Amino acid sequence: MIKLHNYFRSSASYRVRIALNFKGLPYEYVPVHLLKDGGQQLAPSFRTLNPDSLTPVLDDEGQVLTQSLAIIEYLDETRPLPPLLPRTAVERAYVRSIALAIACEIHPLNNLRVLRYLVKTLALSEEQKNTWYRHWVEQGLASLEARLVAEARTGLYALGDAITIADVVIVPQIFNAQRMDCNLGSVPTVMRIYDHCMQLPAFIDAQPSTQPDAE
Amino acid sequence: MIKLHNYFRSSASYRVRIALNFKGLPYEYVPVHLLKDGGQQLAPSFRTLNPDSLTPVLDDEGQVLTQSLAIIEYLDETRPLPPLLPRTAVERAYVRSIALAIACEIHPLNNLRVLRYLVKTLALSEEQKNTWYRHWVEQGLASLEARLVAEARTGLYALGDAITIADVVIVPQIFNAQRMDCNLGSVPTVMRIYDHCMQLPAFIDAQPSTQPDAE
Repeated sequence: MIKLHNYFRSSASYRVRIALNFKGLPYEYVPVHLLKDGGQQLAPSFRTLNPDSLTPVLDDEGQVLTQSLAIIEYLDETRPLPPLLPRTAVERAYVRSIALAIACEIHPLNNLRVLRYLVKTLALSEEQKNTWYRHWVEQGLASLEARLVAEARTGLYALGDAITIADVVIVPQIFNAQRMDCNLGSVPTVMRIYDHCMQLPAFIDAQPSTQPDAE
Repeated sequence: MIKLHNYFRSSASYRVRIALNFKGLPYEYVPVHLLKDGGQQLAPSFRTLNPDSLTPVLDDEGQVLTQSLAIIEYLDETRPLPPLLPRTAVERAYVRSIALAIACEIHPLNNLRVLRYLVKTLALSEEQKNTWYRHWVEQGLASLEARLVAEARTGLYALGDAITIADVVIVPQIFNAQRMDCNLGSVPTVMRIYDHCMQLPAFIDAQPSTQPDAE
């Protein structure tokens, strides 16, 4: 059985849970608490699994995979139906570019170790840290909104009316944005896609609040 | 003909130049200067092409693509030989995870707009900014080194003796690290791969110093 080493609130973990659910794949949930015990991701046993000390890690019958987007591509290649990547190379590039715009331009600036550096090493205030967080989320989502509004390809979801890897990455980012009180009023197209996704069991069942390690 | 909107020193641009060269694809070099004219990537004409205001943008006969890793996957799908992705799903996941570990965990923390925020908005000193830069590069490369040392799959390059997308992403990150005087003495395996890559024309011809817009 697939094992997913993950943390309920990690948005990279959340992406992989959505993909597993979407494909109807059962998995063993192995919690890795990023705050307890000084960070369980830093324990030697976890570092052996992933020297990056990051969740999620997926173990598929002994094949250990890291990086959420690489894991989702792997799941799509080994369990192709229902697909998370569209059929043409141009469309695949398009949905990957949306996923990467979030995974490379927004999320990395706001993960736990970066926020810790801001507060502990740079001695920024809580207010400055939160302003930083909201700045990158709001700027990144504004770009995404501009793209989705300009694109004839936008449908119920990011690409037409079928779920793709783009939606799988959008939803956890919005969850984070809401948690940090980011202004989402100016990204109605992104929010419409989010709302449509959140009507589907694959997304509902993956949300942080209902995971075994949720607090 | 393929057009590449890019900047000589942008490491995401550098990745795509390596991929184009590796596949023997001629392309028109369209410079986008990130520092001149208040940043040519912020001009309305460029924002129409890419609302994210980021280089590179690849235009393949009117198909406009963004995000370097999505562009490289597209080039590999539409021009499969020589390949940049290996043949098995597990190996593809592995090289993608290395590429993403750099593209998501190191590079985003050190791009121009983030460094500007540190200096202009947070009023950090030049020294604090450089310490930030080196911290994320050195931490990220240490993780990569640990993985490459532990992996039986490491060869001349990141995966065995054939170039993959992992090497295409490693090389520009090392270029950046050298430019910023990061300590690279503790990552000998990464540096060995870098040195091997830099003997190949695809990599040599893509390096920033020899591009048309180099200063």
